[in-house]
Amino acid sequence: MPTIGEIAKALGAEAVGRLDLEVTGAAEPAAAGPGDLALALAPNWAASLAQGRASAALLWPDADWQSMGLKAAILAPRGRLAMARLTRMLDEDPYPAGVHPSAQVDPTTRLGEGVAVGALTVIGADAQIGAGTRIGPQVTIAPGARIGDGALIHSGVRIGRRVSIGARVILQPNAVIGGDGFSFVTAEPSHVEVARDSLGRGEVTIPTDPSWHRIHSLGGVDIGDDVEVGAGATIDAGTIRPTRVGSGTKIDNLVMVAHNVVVGQHCLLCGQVGIAGSTVIGDRVVLGGQAGVGDNLVIGNDVVVTGAASILSNVPAGRVMMGNPATRMDLQIESYKALRRLPRILRDLAAGVPKRRQDG
Amino acid sequence: MPTIGEIAKALGAEAVGRLDLEVTGAAEPAAAGPGDLALALAPNWAASLAQGRASAALLWPDADWQSMGLKAAILAPRGRLAMARLTRMLDEDPYPAGVHPSAQVDPTTRLGEGVAVGALTVIGADAQIGAGTRIGPQVTIAPGARIGDGALIHSGVRIGRRVSIGARVILQPNAVIGGDGFSFVTAEPSHVEVARDSLGRGEVTIPTDPSWHRIHSLGGVDIGDDVEVGAGATIDAGTIRPTRVGSGTKIDNLVMVAHNVVVGQHCLLCGQVGIAGSTVIGDRVVLGGQAGVGDNLVIGNDVVVTGAASILSNVPAGRVMMGNPATRMDLQIESYKALRRLPRILRDLAAGVPKRRQDG
Amino acid sequence: MPTIGEIAKALGAEAVGRLDLEVTGAAEPAAAGPGDLALALAPNWAASLAQGRASAALLWPDADWQSMGLKAAILAPRGRLAMARLTRMLDEDPYPAGVHPSAQVDPTTRLGEGVAVGALTVIGADAQIGAGTRIGPQVTIAPGARIGDGALIHSGVRIGRRVSIGARVILQPNAVIGGDGFSFVTAEPSHVEVARDSLGRGEVTIPTDPSWHRIHSLGGVDIGDDVEVGAGATIDAGTIRPTRVGSGTKIDNLVMVAHNVVVGQHCLLCGQVGIAGSTVIGDRVVLGGQAGVGDNLVIGNDVVVTGAASILSNVPAGRVMMGNPATRMDLQIESYKALRRLPRILRDLAAGVPKRRQDG
Repeated sequence: MPTIGEIAKALGAEAVGRLDLEVTGAAEPAAAGPGDLALALAPNWAASLAQGRASAALLWPDADWQSMGLKAAILAPRGRLAMARLTRMLDEDPYPAGVHPSAQVDPTTRLGEGVAVGALTVIGADAQIGAGTRIGPQVTIAPGARIGDGALIHSGVRIGRRVSIGARVILQPNAVIGGDGFSFVTAEPSHVEVARDSLGRGEVTIPTDPSWHRIHSLGGVDIGDDVEVGAGATIDAGTIRPTRVGSGTKIDNLVMVAHNVVVGQHCLLCGQVGIAGSTVIGDRVVLGGQAGVGDNLVIGNDVVVTGAASILSNVPAGRVMMGNPATRMDLQIESYKALRRLPRILRDLAAGVPKRRQDG
Repeated sequence: MPTIGEIAKALGAEAVGRLDLEVTGAAEPAAAGPGDLALALAPNWAASLAQGRASAALLWPDADWQSMGLKAAILAPRGRLAMARLTRMLDEDPYPAGVHPSAQVDPTTRLGEGVAVGALTVIGADAQIGAGTRIGPQVTIAPGARIGDGALIHSGVRIGRRVSIGARVILQPNAVIGGDGFSFVTAEPSHVEVARDSLGRGEVTIPTDPSWHRIHSLGGVDIGDDVEVGAGATIDAGTIRPTRVGSGTKIDNLVMVAHNVVVGQHCLLCGQVGIAGSTVIGDRVVLGGQAGVGDNLVIGNDVVVTGAASILSNVPAGRVMMGNPATRMDLQIESYKALRRLPRILRDLAAGVPKRRQDG
Repeated sequence: MPTIGEIAKALGAEAVGRLDLEVTGAAEPAAAGPGDLALALAPNWAASLAQGRASAALLWPDADWQSMGLKAAILAPRGRLAMARLTRMLDEDPYPAGVHPSAQVDPTTRLGEGVAVGALTVIGADAQIGAGTRIGPQVTIAPGARIGDGALIHSGVRIGRRVSIGARVILQPNAVIGGDGFSFVTAEPSHVEVARDSLGRGEVTIPTDPSWHRIHSLGGVDIGDDVEVGAGATIDAGTIRPTRVGSGTKIDNLVMVAHNVVVGQHCLLCGQVGIAGSTVIGDRVVLGGQAGVGDNLVIGNDVVVTGAASILSNVPAGRVMMGNPATRMDLQIESYKALRRLPRILRDLAAGVPKRRQDG
């Protein structure tokens, strides 16, 4: 069990009080037991410390820890960063090294040193798994797929053909990497193409042959290093070049990244985000939960999109976007405010016009 | 095969006509065969009875069943409640008791009496499965997970470490309980934090180190009794305390419940709803399909949110919310109506101003 | 390896130059190697041909291929249709015929000729699999399910009881067909029913018994021929008749089709679309990504719905719909434009009133 002094050192933070105090876990202040390190990262958490029984806490820099009845404290200038390091220390590796006897691993698969392969996992011919990568139970890795060193792949993940995944990537349960893209074409121009061109004002012509012809996905997926993909998220294969996700990008649950999309580095795609085909997303872009980006668009670096916003056109670098359809956040808020006032204004106008006539 | 009399008794409803008539199934009126009980729960279904061949029907209370050519009828004051009971009677248990020989069950797992474990299911060390719980094929249950009595867990479900699930819970195929939360932090304040604080008007400063540090999920998930979770839905583990779903709450397909969220009792979360991290949802809350709730919010008891609405701030108990961003439903409808009229009003205004000038 | 002449013949397109030139793959113009067929389907791709090393390209009809330094070219009037045929030629069958020894196939299952069953797949009693159908690893097919000829079912797909699937259907990884519908009822009218009836203006009455009674799903799913279902998409079983998807309809990733829904033929449902219970969708309907359709609605043939739109009422045939709540696209665009101008107009109005007063 680590001591307060050891944890503070690992966190690069200052420790005060009894540095030799041992800690068994981390907890919210009110729920903390005697052995827990209470996490009270800002002054508004201080009051709830008294409801719990912690002897030690992780606090903000200038906290008056002695007045809180604590025996020791760790003072962290950026609390959530300290939490990142602390929770990593306290977490355990979920999968032991070694290949489970029930796994179906093709004899041509190249497994790096110290790899874990869980029960009932299937790995196809000529796949490559990097050293130290841990694969949970019931995963599918298609023939020829390549996975870097130190990755963590949870149960039910499906990795298709022509997929290449970098080092230290984390794939949450039931994520699907490399399913086929959604790409279809009619033999003659369809009514959708007509509607797009005419902004919905054109005549709808029913095609003589409404069948959708399938464009196959030959391009696979290329994922960089240190990427995370959430539970049930799907990243489709590209048509003739890979769909790409840049290093350091984090993708949340049930996100959909369509075929041919290019996502830059260090992006955050929050829960249920959807990015349509062939769109290019810059570096450090943040898409809030349920946000959507249309197809064939270019989103610049450092763009921030609020939750549930819908992007229908290109966005220059650094812009903050909101709404459906999305505009600059400050303009959108102005429009919302005006819209809220509108019913009253229209009533006033309606009442005012006859009044003015009387005046005249 | 049950008789009309037996079904009526089980439904707590009144039976009329030949109570000894046997029924082989249930069907919509027009599609009903001679052995079926036709379900015509309201007067607007009466006409279609003549298109089918049913001799018996489930009808509304004061229905004139004899004029419809029926031999027997069940008269139910609340038709859908009768359907709940009837369909339960007619359904079958999908999984036979016993452990399939191909399942990988750790010897330390504690299985209650009458448990079913399907083919190729994996159950980890020290997991507990309550009596009468039926687990389908190819399920993953992580070490230490606990499941109550009488649960029903369908194929492809993934249950992570530190997950506790109550009695009679139903998990639909490929649902994921206890994946890691989506929680990351940069070493210095990121441009998202700046954008949030400035409502999008601030300067975007590119951080010197854009790397996202991962906050690990140590808190697991705690699900009450009588909860249902839909196909492909995901409920993430909390950070240092469990993500919670209260007893009696029903969650539809592809719903996303993020880390640290607390959902109350008897809620309905419809298809593709998303709830962001650390938000608290009261009891009996109903979220319509594709609705989203932002992070760190508090939604009161009995709140109703319409489909595709986006909640960006706290909502008091009992309110009905609509729109993106959501407001009170009646105000939202007023705003929509005003917005529809707005183009014409602006044209009138534009036309009216010069006219007035001429008048002057 | 096919020659330019052979490919052109298969594509029904014109070939020019060295028809005997062999091609090893397809690539975007700038990335093309010497053996690749560069895909430059429109004049704006021509410039990038010089950046690559292709000797042959797929071009638009009147392209001046000789000036581009090519040895041969295929001239296709409808480029994406040519791509559909070309990518199909270049794709490979992912699963070899035969039943993998680790698969758990019930002895009563009827397998057609040339069927492939992947590793660790489970097929229940009395299921029927059509000739030439290829099933990947770790799939679940419930007892009694029926699948037509020539289907392709990828890893992790779950097919429930009472599901019937036509010929040549493609199911992407982790799709779920035939999970239970989301259908619940309280013993007395709930506050949701009250809110719906009163448009949110009524009193919220907390029911004495807030428990949700479950309506079981006995109706299964009926899917036509040539349907595709995307990764992680879910199609729920109907209550007493099947949920239906018509032939030729293509469904993208993470789409949710609820119980009792009827989807017509040749529709496109793009990524993350949601269709609520009992709604009827006509033929050739296109729903853009993240669009939602409420329950119990009727959407006419040939309707086009833009991305992220939310349909709350019936839509007549042939209409193009946009927005949340959705209206005709041209009216919606007019409203958006008016809304953008509104803040300035309100400021002008506010400034104008005192000015006029001064005038008076």
